[in-house]
Order: sequence, then C-alpha cells, then structure tokens
Amino acid sequence: MKKLINAPDDVVTDALAGLAAAHPSLRLDAENKVVIRGDAPRPNKVGLVSGGGSGHEPLHGGFVGYGMLDAACAGEVFTSPVPDQMLAATQAVNGGAGVLHIVKNYTGDILNFQLAAELADDEGIEVVSVVVNDDVAVQDSLYTAGRRGVGATVFVEKIAGALAEEGASLADVAAVAREVNERSRSFGVALTSCTLPAVGKPSFELAESEIELGIGIHGEPGRERTTITTAHNLAGTVMDAIADDMPLSGDVLVMVNGMGGTPLMELYVMFAEVQRYIEGHGARVARNLVGNYITSLDMQGFSVTVTQLTDTLTRLWDAPVDTPGLRWGR
Amino acid sequence: MKKLINAPDDVVTDALAGLAAAHPSLRLDAENKVVIRGDAPRPNKVGLVSGGGSGHEPLHGGFVGYGMLDAACAGEVFTSPVPDQMLAATQAVNGGAGVLHIVKNYTGDILNFQLAAELADDEGIEVVSVVVNDDVAVQDSLYTAGRRGVGATVFVEKIAGALAEEGASLADVAAVAREVNERSRSFGVALTSCTLPAVGKPSFELAESEIELGIGIHGEPGRERTTITTAHNLAGTVMDAIADDMPLSGDVLVMVNGMGGTPLMELYVMFAEVQRYIEGHGARVARNLVGNYITSLDMQGFSVTVTQLTDTLTRLWDAPVDTPGLRWGR
Repeated sequence: MKKLINAPDDVVTDALAGLAAAHPSLRLDAENKVVIRGDAPRPNKVGLVSGGGSGHEPLHGGFVGYGMLDAACAGEVFTSPVPDQMLAATQAVNGGAGVLHIVKNYTGDILNFQLAAELADDEGIEVVSVVVNDDVAVQDSLYTAGRRGVGATVFVEKIAGALAEEGASLADVAAVAREVNERSRSFGVALTSCTLPAVGKPSFELAESEIELGIGIHGEPGRERTTITTAHNLAGTVMDAIADDMPLSGDVLVMVNGMGGTPLMELYVMFAEVQRYIEGHGARVARNLVGNYITSLDMQGFSVTVTQLTDTLTRLWDAPVDTPGLRWGR
Repeated sequence: MKKLINAPDDVVTDALAGLAAAHPSLRLDAENKVVIRGDAPRPNKVGLVSGGGSGHEPLHGGFVGYGMLDAACAGEVFTSPVPDQMLAATQAVNGGAGVLHIVKNYTGDILNFQLAAELADDEGIEVVSVVVNDDVAVQDSLYTAGRRGVGATVFVEKIAGALAEEGASLADVAAVAREVNERSRSFGVALTSCTLPAVGKPSFELAESEIELGIGIHGEPGRERTTITTAHNLAGTVMDAIADDMPLSGDVLVMVNGMGGTPLMELYVMFAEVQRYIEGHGARVARNLVGNYITSLDMQGFSVTVTQLTDTLTRLWDAPVDTPGLRWGR
C-alpha cells in the first residue's frame, strides 16, 4: 500500500488537522473530530450538522462554512461517527433556533444520529433529522436498510444551508432538505476498487476490463458487473437507471462526481454525455457540478446525481457559499 | 485500460465539449481546441493566453475566466498545442492592449508559442511571453532544456490575471508574471505511473513500495526512486529540496497539489506536514491551495509549490476570480 499518510490509525486526525490549518475560518474540535464554522453558534440561525465515515472527502468537513454546514463529525474511514461526536457538534452550533441533522442512510449513521438527537433533546436542544436515500441502484445494501444515501447529500447540505442562512425556521429548513432528497436520484459506477489505510489491500477485486454498475460509496455491491464500454454507453446505462425511477422533465441540477481516483478530464467527457442524454429526454441541465465531491478513497469511477429543480431550489442553489469544497458568490 | 472515454482519439475534444457545456460563461473554438472567456476580447485589457498538452486538468482550460486566463489552447494528451491554435487564441483575446503568453518550459511549448507570437506580431498584435520554470527537481529533463514548468503556472495565471483585470499594461502584467515565477519553487513525487489513453498501459513502472522523487508532470524521470515512507518524511524530503534552492522566509503561498489519482484526504495530511515544516523554518503559510490543480492523468502522487509573497502579490492572489477551477470573491 502506498498512501500519503503517517500511520493508518492517524489518517483521520491528520487530515482534519490539515483541513483546519488550510482553512482558518474553520475551527477543529480535535478530540471529538468535529469541524465547526469559526463563527458558530450563530444566534437564531438553525444549525446544520452532518457527518459520517471518513474517506469521502470533501464530504462532509469540506462543506462546513457560510451557506452550508455549521459542523461535520468525522468517523474513522468508512465507519460511522459515534453519538458523542454528533452531540458535541450539535451543542457547538446550537444558536437557539434548533439543529438539523443531515443523515445519509446507513444503519450505523441512522442509529447514532438518533441517539445523539435524544441526548440533545435532554439538554433542551431541538433537533430534526433528515435522511438522505437517493441511490437508485439497489433496494437494500450491505450497511443499509432501504436505499443508500450518496450524492444528493451535497445538494441537501447546500440548499438547506442557504435557507438556514436566510433565517428560516427549523421546520422550513428540514422541509427543503426533505424536498431536495425526494427530488434527487443517483447511480454510481466503479472502475476500480479502493484501499482502506487500515486494511492495506483493495476492498474487492475488479478484473482488467470489468466495472461494477451501481457501486456504493464504500464499495458495497451494486447491480451487476460488466465490461467497460464507451462513455456514451455508460451514460446511457446510468441515466436509464435514474430516469426509470424519476422521469426527467423541466430544469435539473446534475452532478458528475468523481470517486477520488478518476481524472477531471474523464469527468468532463462523462458530463457531455450525461447532458446530451438529459436534453434528449426533454429536460434541461440548468445547473451542474463536475468534480470530486463525494469520494471513495482512491476508487476510480463516477456517479451521477440528478435533482428536479424548482424556482426556489434554483435560487437557494445559486445563493452564496463559502466552504473548502464549494465556494462562490461571496 | 479502463477510462471514461469514447475513444482515445476523441478524449480531448470530448472533454473540452464537456467543460464548455458545464460552464456556459466559456466559449469553445472546437476546431482549434481553444477555450475562451465568453466576453473576450475585452477592450483595452491585456489578454492572457496559456496552453499545453492535455491531461493536466483543470490546467489550463479550467483557469479561463474572470481574473485569470482569457484563453487556453489544448494540445493532445501530453503533447504541445500547435502554433495555429496559439495564434487563434491570441486573436480571440486581443482587445488592443496586447497579449501575454504564459508558457511552461517544455521544448515544444516554447518553440510553438514563439512561432505563434511571431505570427501574431505580423498581424500587429503585441505579444510578450513569460516562461515558467519552477521545478527544482532536475536541471534538464526529457522534454525540457533547463527546469520544467509545473505548479507555479497556476500562481502565475492567477496573479497576472488579477493585475490584467485591474487594467495594467502588458509590460506590468508580464513583469508580475515573471516575478511570481522567480519567487516560486516546486517539487513532485509519484506513487504510481499514469496511463495515456492512446497508449493503454502505464508510461513507466513503479514497484509495490516504490516512489519517484522529483517526477515530472508527464512522468519524466526525477532525482531518484526510493521506498514509500511517512507523510512527515516525504514532506521533509520535498521541502528540503525546495528550501535548498530558495531559503524560506516571510509570508509564503503554498500549494499541495494532487496528481489526479490521490484522495483529498491524503493531500490534507501532506498539507499539515508541509505547513509544520515551513513554520518550523521561520516562514509563515499566509495563503494556500490544497487539491488537484495541475495533474498527470490518473497518477497518484503530489507536488508542493512555494511562492514567496509580497504585499502586492498577496493582494492580487486575494482578488476575485471566477473560473471552473478557482473561484472566489465574486
């Protein structure tokens, strides 16, 4: 295994220290592995907390800042954070208007965020949780009852964060977060496996020309293994899976996301194909993101997330944001 | 070979189409493979043109936009663009105040940009060229007489672009570009090789635990091959090479750049170590970039670029920029 780390046990701590050092507007609770906005808690602003296993950077710590998350808790690589971390994050961002937990649908994350919400409630902090479950690939999965939460998490964090920044109530911020999730679908493809620092060898094996359709962000099995084909055909397969589940129409927000080891050049090739598919099916790509936003360590591959926009969602998407991973308009 | 492409011969064309589709503020001259700011030419603004072989995305096309480049020409993968492309880019951005060519020090790039400048001169367009040669690893290299041009190119494009946006003269924009290059040093490390789409197999081989110190962005040989070690030790090796060539002092701008296949998490681990080294050697990391900015296809590895700042350079670095690859303050 060749990785830019000091030791497998230190990688999360060291990476968080680097993130905080590179972005002085963030504050790090190193003991609890929580990344916090420097100006948190903001009085009367709903606090947004997310988190999950590490190895998906920039998600979630890279999305802490103005217009997005107030705090993110980092678990070990591909491992849920514990309730104490989530509680510490919740306390740190509670400005009196309540706290929204944005939870990807993995069993450990669900259970631990639920416990953290109960502990926060005991302290008089109102918490509402929203579960993200946008992955159409499989119904249940290795670590998940129901659909997995993947790329839509980025959109939920951005759009709910923008509404919270405007001073909306906890109920309204939670409602828009749920709306984004309900209007979003994702599907991922792996070209290669990924290697966890603590394991030192690939999590699974793919043959020379083999790819996995419907891969999870932890390498959970997808729908099937098949042979690599053209970007055009891959876009067709991915978009058929998404459009079968949510017919395409109107304006959509699209992310072509890299899994961590795929060059940006290839993601742009995929974006051109995805856009062509969508516009050939009667919808319009009104907004987009192309790059590494929710990754799986060094995995090569990509995922596509499509969200049906409304005027309000578009306005909130366009609102200023200032985080390490997304930054514009401010 | 598993890549997200349609065909090796189409990858540059398809990726440029995707870039332009994702960023409607850019305009694509598809025939010449030139990415242009939508509002170019801007009257009385110095035009900034760069370019080079593809495979280093987001460099250069991803740095076209407000506050940075006016146009970028894309060669085939790891191959210099031809003079006609550079001339087309120069014509497209000439607003009457002259055009700056920012040229990485590779023999093909130098010769072709020189010819393009002569052709532009024949048409009455004033062109000044600035050569970037910041890589301290080796004196001459596979495609280069003198030092290679690498990460400092990003800083030159950003800072010269900011000065051009203020309405400075061609001479002044060229002077600040040269100043940034002179105050910058870089060094890269490869953990793995990279695979060109047209070749289909890795350009070189590194063994299971082997890394190459001083790698070039096309996989050109560096100083030596050695065994993978800790992030702390790697930072020491890289920073010793840089500091030996340019003693560290005052405020510096630092980039920890991924080669394309390295997870962001590992780049943050490296940043923490690089910052510790610099601050332990009497300088201060006043500004930084951590991420994939000048890549080598799917290569795993990183490079560090250090620039000695002045108040003026810091101000120009902080100025608004709005490109696919760098975006803030606007």
